Amino acid sequence: MTKVRVAVAGASGYMGAELLRLLLVHPRVELTGVTSERLAGERLDRSFPHLRGLTDLEFHDLRPEWLADVADIVFLALPHMESQRAVPGLRAAGRKVIDLSADYRLRDATDYVTWYKAAHIDPAGLGEAVYGLPELHRKAIAGASLVANPGCYPAGAVLATAPLFRNGLARLDGVVIDGKSGVTGAGAQGRKVDPMYLFTEANENVQAYGLASHRHTPEIEQELSLLAGAALKVSFTPHLVPLNRGLFTTASVVLASPLSTADLTAVYREVYAGEPFVRVLGDGDRPTTRAVVGSNYCDVAIVADTRTGRAVCVSALDNLGKGGSSNGVQNLNILCGWPERTGLEAAPVYP
Amino acid sequence: MTKVRVAVAGASGYMGAELLRLLLVHPRVELTGVTSERLAGERLDRSFPHLRGLTDLEFHDLRPEWLADVADIVFLALPHMESQRAVPGLRAAGRKVIDLSADYRLRDATDYVTWYKAAHIDPAGLGEAVYGLPELHRKAIAGASLVANPGCYPAGAVLATAPLFRNGLARLDGVVIDGKSGVTGAGAQGRKVDPMYLFTEANENVQAYGLASHRHTPEIEQELSLLAGAALKVSFTPHLVPLNRGLFTTASVVLASPLSTADLTAVYREVYAGEPFVRVLGDGDRPTTRAVVGSNYCDVAIVADTRTGRAVCVSALDNLGKGGSSNGVQNLNILCGWPERTGLEAAPVYP
Amino acid sequence: MTKVRVAVAGASGYMGAELLRLLLVHPRVELTGVTSERLAGERLDRSFPHLRGLTDLEFHDLRPEWLADVADIVFLALPHMESQRAVPGLRAAGRKVIDLSADYRLRDATDYVTWYKAAHIDPAGLGEAVYGLPELHRKAIAGASLVANPGCYPAGAVLATAPLFRNGLARLDGVVIDGKSGVTGAGAQGRKVDPMYLFTEANENVQAYGLASHRHTPEIEQELSLLAGAALKVSFTPHLVPLNRGLFTTASVVLASPLSTADLTAVYREVYAGEPFVRVLGDGDRPTTRAVVGSNYCDVAIVADTRTGRAVCVSALDNLGKGGSSNGVQNLNILCGWPERTGLEAAPVYP
Amino acid sequence: MTKVRVAVAGASGYMGAELLRLLLVHPRVELTGVTSERLAGERLDRSFPHLRGLTDLEFHDLRPEWLADVADIVFLALPHMESQRAVPGLRAAGRKVIDLSADYRLRDATDYVTWYKAAHIDPAGLGEAVYGLPELHRKAIAGASLVANPGCYPAGAVLATAPLFRNGLARLDGVVIDGKSGVTGAGAQGRKVDPMYLFTEANENVQAYGLASHRHTPEIEQELSLLAGAALKVSFTPHLVPLNRGLFTTASVVLASPLSTADLTAVYREVYAGEPFVRVLGDGDRPTTRAVVGSNYCDVAIVADTRTGRAVCVSALDNLGKGGSSNGVQNLNILCGWPERTGLEAAPVYP
Repeated sequence: MTKVRVAVAGASGYMGAELLRLLLVHPRVELTGVTSERLAGERLDRSFPHLRGLTDLEFHDLRPEWLADVADIVFLALPHMESQRAVPGLRAAGRKVIDLSADYRLRDATDYVTWYKAAHIDPAGLGEAVYGLPELHRKAIAGASLVANPGCYPAGAVLATAPLFRNGLARLDGVVIDGKSGVTGAGAQGRKVDPMYLFTEANENVQAYGLASHRHTPEIEQELSLLAGAALKVSFTPHLVPLNRGLFTTASVVLASPLSTADLTAVYREVYAGEPFVRVLGDGDRPTTRAVVGSNYCDVAIVADTRTGRAVCVSALDNLGKGGSSNGVQNLNILCGWPERTGLEAAPVYP
Repeated sequence: MTKVRVAVAGASGYMGAELLRLLLVHPRVELTGVTSERLAGERLDRSFPHLRGLTDLEFHDLRPEWLADVADIVFLALPHMESQRAVPGLRAAGRKVIDLSADYRLRDATDYVTWYKAAHIDPAGLGEAVYGLPELHRKAIAGASLVANPGCYPAGAVLATAPLFRNGLARLDGVVIDGKSGVTGAGAQGRKVDPMYLFTEANENVQAYGLASHRHTPEIEQELSLLAGAALKVSFTPHLVPLNRGLFTTASVVLASPLSTADLTAVYREVYAGEPFVRVLGDGDRPTTRAVVGSNYCDVAIVADTRTGRAVCVSALDNLGKGGSSNGVQNLNILCGWPERTGLEAAPVYP
Repeated sequence: MTKVRVAVAGASGYMGAELLRLLLVHPRVELTGVTSERLAGERLDRSFPHLRGLTDLEFHDLRPEWLADVADIVFLALPHMESQRAVPGLRAAGRKVIDLSADYRLRDATDYVTWYKAAHIDPAGLGEAVYGLPELHRKAIAGASLVANPGCYPAGAVLATAPLFRNGLARLDGVVIDGKSGVTGAGAQGRKVDPMYLFTEANENVQAYGLASHRHTPEIEQELSLLAGAALKVSFTPHLVPLNRGLFTTASVVLASPLSTADLTAVYREVYAGEPFVRVLGDGDRPTTRAVVGSNYCDVAIVADTRTGRAVCVSALDNLGKGGSSNGVQNLNILCGWPERTGLEAAPVYP
Repeated sequence: MTKVRVAVAGASGYMGAELLRLLLVHPRVELTGVTSERLAGERLDRSFPHLRGLTDLEFHDLRPEWLADVADIVFLALPHMESQRAVPGLRAAGRKVIDLSADYRLRDATDYVTWYKAAHIDPAGLGEAVYGLPELHRKAIAGASLVANPGCYPAGAVLATAPLFRNGLARLDGVVIDGKSGVTGAGAQGRKVDPMYLFTEANENVQAYGLASHRHTPEIEQELSLLAGAALKVSFTPHLVPLNRGLFTTASVVLASPLSTADLTAVYREVYAGEPFVRVLGDGDRPTTRAVVGSNYCDVAIVADTRTGRAVCVSALDNLGKGGSSNGVQNLNILCGWPERTGLEAAPVYP
């Protein structure tokens, strides 16, 4: 069984670290290169002590030509704005790219100006990128050369509500989404050293941030609008909660017509039937981040709130998992035509 | 300065423990009795080692006559349904009562049948009870004989949104409220030993519970409807997050007409001017539970979401503080005509 | 590649859950049965929601004949005293057993009377059991029919200090060992519902327990005495710290003659050369539980304290990993003659 | 009742923040000045949001003349080496100083060269400084002009073992001390932004640091030697555990002659009789950090380990409390001749 050569650019953060964890044991992958501007020349296991004994690789500096040379497929775990600088060179060299940054997620280039305050410098790439949520775009991903892996909040929000919008069961206005993320997801992916992320500040604390302004908002709206067949807007509020991994989403949606919890659950079960990584809970079972951490699962449940004519849609995922790196590996599997669970069979790490 | 004799019934849980912490140093209070059915006859500091050296009291069994004998004012930190059994006897003996349970919060007795599945056995008491949120009912509390201290979620939700409804700035439909509570608040007040509250289960975990069915829902609706002058309903979802203390509320409300964040903040500042325990944040500052833990403060902020015509209203409080025991002490101060900060001057415990 | 049929008795606790996580993806294992007296008849994924979609097995009641029927090798994750009731029947049926309880760890049957307050009921089994720490007893394990998997504290303490005692570098008196365990290890393995293990009690807390009386003490002494060739005693104090997984050991040992940190580290490197799961750190690197969680690694380091003539020996492991279930899988691999890393290749889960 | 004017230099860290919390409600104190080089000109409640509404003070830059002008007594919560630059000017101006740094704790000036790698620049001040552990030096503190508040680990270690050494019950060799500190104590007092203190790194982690080299070692040795009347050395290992506040100490000491747990406990009770902030536990009760957090208490217990001829001495304190700021306030009370519990009456914050 020949292996595919895979590299990871920007591997010094938590998203990169999780990719390394997964790729090092992926049966079809040979990890051939990792980059980090900051750590170039240093052994991986110096910065990531948990990898001692598992790899002899060193961080390389970020040169697209070098990456194109050592790898067939390249993951980018770079900060926003840096991916769009690296992608054109990689694509010119014929390499497929799975980008974990936000750089290729939004289809409308003007959204980058609005939300990221900068024009996109690779509109050609943007035009060909496929939004990498397999549950929505599996076929397109299979044929893509550039996959834009979803943000963690959008992954949770879209999977929690997609069946409603896809099936015309929800009204387009009045969508309110509340996200609660562990610290590896909420801005500290790059192991960024900011006071807000100090143990003493984040521990025993809950806070909202990015009120009415978080950049994942247009991404959620894009995907739900696509499903609904009409533009919709969402009120989205992200929160930082004291856990390392885990993202919980609570979405409140106005039902187009009255449906019971059992009806709604049946719809979800049908929509997600066959999905290897979405588990629909019912009968009083509720998603918890505890039950998905370390895996590519997204657990979802829906409950009708008959008093208000709304539905409560909840989902739990690992922000470094289905909300990031392991979803990226699922995309890799799809790109390569492998079974989607390849390298992702391990159970969540409980407790 | 003569002291008032105060007793606490049901002091074996966390809400009771916090009352003891506050009452033991309250300059106008003499703590004269504590009860616990389970721990009767045992010294307080056996069950609460942190109180060693601070009190020689023992837990007494719950006899209203005894309580009426030893105290002028009685706090009830009993489970739901038990308060309404104890209150009539205390009131018959002329004792004022501050009840921390849910038993006297809802004005409409039929709500108890709907939400608590049992008829109220003390409709007379219920008729005279005053909802103990000083920011809304200060005058009534001052003259009350029975104060129903608010639930933790209602305290956070009402304080976060009250200025909008009081001033007619919000539409009555489409209110969505998301609560995140530490473990002392979310059902474990009684130090209940349930697997859900084990460290290994609650740690590194986020979960929703009581979807579309939590009993604090009618309490929120009652108070906001009263402010709005018309009945409204809310979609409320509570969550358990891994902290000991702290409750964060995120409410999304449809604005009746477009207003800026600055406009809204000004309204909040005006409504809460003079309130000793509500701090309105602005200029990018955001509430965090970290900044209120151990105190009676509720920090609030509001942001306009002009894209969706909504406002995001957030609040942070300590569920054992403004969401429970210290709010009860504020009620005690009002009942007795003392300055409201008496015994509540201590700063939050940071970090 | 034929698979070996493996069963787990007593799978309702955390140790059992971790075994399931590992065995479900072990390439040479078919998981054929799991038992739990309490949960018999219930699907595994009802009690362990993280396993949804990964197994259709149900808990069976604990009948040795049934276990012998469905499996070639049986793991016992039962409470103390229950293993020794199950083992004789399994062995009579020719089944190999890996016991994760304390029942077969102590060679001297009188130690059970002293430390566990009960005579051993299977002295024959005890006589043939092999202490399952591969780094010390690899050859004996390979030929064993009954393997007594080490306790979590002994695993950490013995691996931290073994090279000193094996090589005669330490004095036999004055050994002081301090253990810090996460909550899954410190008595809550069985998901036991005890107030001490409530989130609200264990969170933000450190406490010592079992002072001068913990049952892992004779186990540590047995193995270190065996290495030293003479009886020694240790002063051992275990602690409960607020983490789910992870066990850190700090041992202070009197050096027989002065040696530098570099000398000592060289000895450790030599002793553990070739060990697939012990990583010796040096050059200022220090073990952390963070770097081993979710894996079978034990990271160790040693530093000379020249001022006091002592050495500080530290180790970090996952109490459910090298301190429990994954070490059990390593024993399984040895028993079956498979490469020791089979099924244990995954990197630690960081962060 | 006239108040004493008190200032805090270096109030931007956690130790300073805790001082502010205590001094703001101290009935005999008027807080007249706070300094921070980094935050000079900024309001306190900008950096410490929990203090909103409690003070209008601003951070001032660190000028001893200014401090001497605004305050009668000055707390220094400065980093090591900075206190000894500020003290001479304050003392020249006749101000009493309570220094929370390490700068005046060691009596032997050469120890600063050995452990802090720099000669002391204020030997005159050092000669007059009194080690500020009231339980050992109450009388000297009362008459001091410069009080060196103990380090957090030494406070825990000395209080845990002092009765043994004072009464000649322990041998001088073989003392092994293990400390476990929350993150506010272990190097992050200054809200220092170092990767080691990130939530994602410190959470769910235990690690040792400063092996055989921590600077609190000579401080522990100094005080225990003084009590024993002869020089002794200790093997001390500090650890970082995932809590905000709390320090737990486990000391193992060789008994000079066999004594039972009851005997030893009686000794401790006698030695600490009358101490307002040391609570001796017995009868199976054990110290926990949970029971002292937010207070000036240090809970201690001792158990005989008859098998090894040793005693296990454990203590729990709040590193910002008895291990720092509140012990400083106790020193202030002693300096001023006030009852020692003044301003320190509040119960620990549980849970």
